[in-house]
Amino acid sequence: MLGEETPLEVAIIGGGIVGLMLANGLIRQQVKVKVYEQAQSFREIGAGMAFTANATRCMELIDPAILAAFRSSGSVATSNGDAQDPNDYLRWIDGYNRHYTDDPYYQRMLYKIDAGYKGFEGCRRDQFLEALVKIIPPGVVECKKRLDKLGQKGMEEKILMEFCDGTSAEADAVIGCDGIKSRVREILFGQGNPASYPHYTHKVAYRGLIPMEKAIQALGEYKARNQHNHIGPNAHLIHYPVANQTMINATAFISDSEDWTDDKQMVVPASRHVVEDAFAGWSPCVRALASLLPEKLDKWAVFDVWDYPAPFYNRGKICLAGDAAHASSPHHGAGACMGVEDALCLSNLMIQVSESIRKDAAIKGRALSVAFETFDAVRRGRTQWLVNSSRRVCDLYQQPEWADETRWVKAETCFEEIKDRSLKIWHFGYYGMLEETIQGYRQRLKLLQVAPNGHG
Amino acid sequence: MLGEETPLEVAIIGGGIVGLMLANGLIRQQVKVKVYEQAQSFREIGAGMAFTANATRCMELIDPAILAAFRSSGSVATSNGDAQDPNDYLRWIDGYNRHYTDDPYYQRMLYKIDAGYKGFEGCRRDQFLEALVKIIPPGVVECKKRLDKLGQKGMEEKILMEFCDGTSAEADAVIGCDGIKSRVREILFGQGNPASYPHYTHKVAYRGLIPMEKAIQALGEYKARNQHNHIGPNAHLIHYPVANQTMINATAFISDSEDWTDDKQMVVPASRHVVEDAFAGWSPCVRALASLLPEKLDKWAVFDVWDYPAPFYNRGKICLAGDAAHASSPHHGAGACMGVEDALCLSNLMIQVSESIRKDAAIKGRALSVAFETFDAVRRGRTQWLVNSSRRVCDLYQQPEWADETRWVKAETCFEEIKDRSLKIWHFGYYGMLEETIQGYRQRLKLLQVAPNGHG
Repeated sequence: MLGEETPLEVAIIGGGIVGLMLANGLIRQQVKVKVYEQAQSFREIGAGMAFTANATRCMELIDPAILAAFRSSGSVATSNGDAQDPNDYLRWIDGYNRHYTDDPYYQRMLYKIDAGYKGFEGCRRDQFLEALVKIIPPGVVECKKRLDKLGQKGMEEKILMEFCDGTSAEADAVIGCDGIKSRVREILFGQGNPASYPHYTHKVAYRGLIPMEKAIQALGEYKARNQHNHIGPNAHLIHYPVANQTMINATAFISDSEDWTDDKQMVVPASRHVVEDAFAGWSPCVRALASLLPEKLDKWAVFDVWDYPAPFYNRGKICLAGDAAHASSPHHGAGACMGVEDALCLSNLMIQVSESIRKDAAIKGRALSVAFETFDAVRRGRTQWLVNSSRRVCDLYQQPEWADETRWVKAETCFEEIKDRSLKIWHFGYYGMLEETIQGYRQRLKLLQVAPNGHG
Repeated sequence: MLGEETPLEVAIIGGGIVGLMLANGLIRQQVKVKVYEQAQSFREIGAGMAFTANATRCMELIDPAILAAFRSSGSVATSNGDAQDPNDYLRWIDGYNRHYTDDPYYQRMLYKIDAGYKGFEGCRRDQFLEALVKIIPPGVVECKKRLDKLGQKGMEEKILMEFCDGTSAEADAVIGCDGIKSRVREILFGQGNPASYPHYTHKVAYRGLIPMEKAIQALGEYKARNQHNHIGPNAHLIHYPVANQTMINATAFISDSEDWTDDKQMVVPASRHVVEDAFAGWSPCVRALASLLPEKLDKWAVFDVWDYPAPFYNRGKICLAGDAAHASSPHHGAGACMGVEDALCLSNLMIQVSESIRKDAAIKGRALSVAFETFDAVRRGRTQWLVNSSRRVCDLYQQPEWADETRWVKAETCFEEIKDRSLKIWHFGYYGMLEETIQGYRQRLKLLQVAPNGHG
C-alpha cells in the first residue's frame, strides 16, 4: 500500500529522533507524511544518547524497522556486565566525604538500582539519525525548511505552513517535533509568552571524554568501568564507559545561582579550572577525575520547561510532541524515551483516524483534532511529571545535607523516592497507554458526533 | 495453646493502636507478651483516625480479631458514596482564586483520585483502643508504667526494663511502640541526639467541628458532604463529614516560618481569628468556613522525624515500631497505616523466631536480633519515605504558585506525583513484604550460623 494515495496528510516539523521515528510510524500506517527540517547537520552537543529497554520496546511497536535501525547504528548496552551479573545498574556514590582518614580514596556506595539485562542501550545521536533517515522513503524529509507561520482556518480545511525561505506547504495536521526551541510551541502559545520558551534550570553541565587507563588511575578499575554518579552538595558528576571501554564519558552538573543572560547561546566555551574549583572540597577521586577533563570544555546551560509548562499539547490539528512539548533536564536520562512513547501514542492515534475517515471522509479534521486532544490527555501528565521529576532528583543528588555529617541519614532517605521515580520511567505500561489512547479517542469522537452542533 | 508456657517473652512499650495490635498478633503466635503503658487515659487530640482499605487488610492478616474490633468500635467509611458511585475519593480544590468575577463562590476542582469502595474507614481513636484492649487477655497490659531505662547485656541474656515508679521487669526482646515522644528511641540514640526527638515541621494545625447545615451554607451541599482539600499559597484546609453526616471535621494547616520554642507543649490554646487572618485573601467559601470554627481552638504544632530520621530501627533485641520509629506529619493520613504494616511484619517475624527456637533454644537472642535487623531492612525505606512524602505533598498543596496566575499550570503539574505517592500507600503489596521478610530473616540467620564466630 506504501506510496498509494491516502486521504490523510500529516506534516512533521523537525527531523530529530522523535520526528523521524514518528514519520516511520505514520508511513507504516499509510499516512502521507512530510518532515520539514530546518538544518542538515547535527550539533555535537548531546552526541551520545541512551534509551531504556522499555523505550526500545516502544520503538519496536512503532515500527520494527526503527529498532533495527537503532541496532544497526551501533547501539551498545551501556553496562559492563560480566557472565556473573550481566545487568545494568544505576549507582550513587558519596562524591564528597572522606569516611576514613587512613583511606581518603574510599567512597561509600550509597544506593544501586538494577535496571535489568540491557537496561540501557546507548548510541551516537548522529549515527542513529542517519540510520533512521535510511529507512524513510526518498522525498519525505525536506531539509533547510525553517517554519515561520502556521495558518489553521476551518476544522475541515488544510493547515498552511509558511517557511522562512518564502515557500509554503499544506497538510491536514501539523506535529511539532522541533525540539526544545520549538517554533511550533511559540506559535501555539504566542511570542513573549513564557510558556513558549524553555527556561534556565540553574544548573550548568561540563562534559568530557577521558581515556580509560587514566580514569582507572583516578577511580580504580571497578568505578571506571561501570556507571557511577558521584553526588554531593550543590553538584554531581556522572560517568560511564563509552567507545568499547576505551574511554569514559564524564559530565559534571553544577548549581548556579545566577541567571543565564543569553537565551540564544546555551553553550559557551569554558576551562577545566572552573570544574576543578567547583569540586575543590570533594573526594580525591572526584578531584582527580575533574583534573583529567580536557583543558578547554563546553559549558552547557541546562534549560527545560519546568517553570512554565505547556497548558495543552494541541490546539485543533496542531500538536506538540517530544522536547517541543516537554523539554526536560537530563537527570533521568529519559527525555528521548518520553519522545519515543509520544511517537508510539501518535502513530496508534493515526490508525484510529484513518479508520474513522474510511467510514466518513467528511470528519477528517475533527477526527485529527480529537486524536490530538486524546494525545494531550494521555501524555501530558506523565511527560510533565518527567520534567518535574528530573529537577527533583537533581535536587536530591545535590542536597546540601551531604556536607553535614549530622544530616547524612536524612539525605540518604531520598533513595526510596529516586527508585520509585526510576521504576516509573523504566516499567512504563505502554500497552495500557495504547488501550487508554484508543478508548479515549473513540469516546471523544462519539461525544463529538452526538453533540447537537456536531455531524453524525 | 494460648496461655501455655512459651519460650519467647516480648515486652511492648506503649499501649497505643500499634502496640495493642502487635500484642494481639504476638499472642496469636503463642508469644508471651507484656504491654507497658505510661497512662490510662487518651488525649482528645488526634481523636479521629482513618485507615486505608489496604491497612484494614493488614489488620486482618495480623489477627482477624483486630479487624473485628475495629469494625465493632464504630468504624465507618469516610465517603458519602451513593448507589451510583459508592467509592471514596480524595479531592483537591482551588481554595484561593476567584476564577469568575460574576461567581465568586465558584471553586475550580483541581484533581480527584479514586480510592475505591470503602477506600478509607474512620473511627474514634479512644473507641478503637477500647475495643483492642477487650480482645487482649487480662494481665497483658500494665498501665502507669513509664519506661526509664533499658539494659541489654549479652545477646542471650534478658533485657532489663526499669520504670519511673521504681519497678522493673525483664523480657527477651523490647519493642518500642511508644509514639512520637518515644523513650525507647531516646534510649537507643542517646539523650541530646537530635535523632532521639521529633522536630517542628513549621506547620501549625487548627481543628474544629462544624454543624453540617452551617457547612452547607458556606460550601454548598456537595462540598460539605464530601471530603475536600482546599489548597493555596502557604496553607490548606481539609474537611470531611463525621458523626453520620451531622458535622464536618475541618483542619487548617498553616505554614509558620518561626521556630516552635516549647518542645514539651505541642498544643496551645488559640483563637479562631488567627485562622481567619491566615485565609484572609482566599476564596469566600474558605473564609466562610473558617468563620464557622469555634472561637476557641487548639493550635497544634506538627512535629515529625523528617530532619533527623532514625539511622536504624533496632539495636540487638530492642526495636522501634510505629510513630516511635517514623512519626510523620499527617498530610497523607497514613501514619497509623504504616504502624499497622509494621505490626504485620513483626508478628510474622515472631513466627519465624518461634520456629527457630523450637529447633535450637540456644539461639533465641540471636534469632530475635536477626528478626529486628530484618524488620529494619524491610520497613525503614518505606516508612522514612512516608515521612518525607508527607512533607512533600504538603509543600505541593501549599505552593506559592497557586497565588500567581502565570504559574497555575506549573502548580497543577504536581498531581501526577501526588497520585503516585497516594497509590504507593494504598496499593501496598503486603504479601510481597511478608515474603521479603521471611526470606530476609532466613538468609540472615543462615549467614550468622555459618559465620566463624557464630554457633551452628
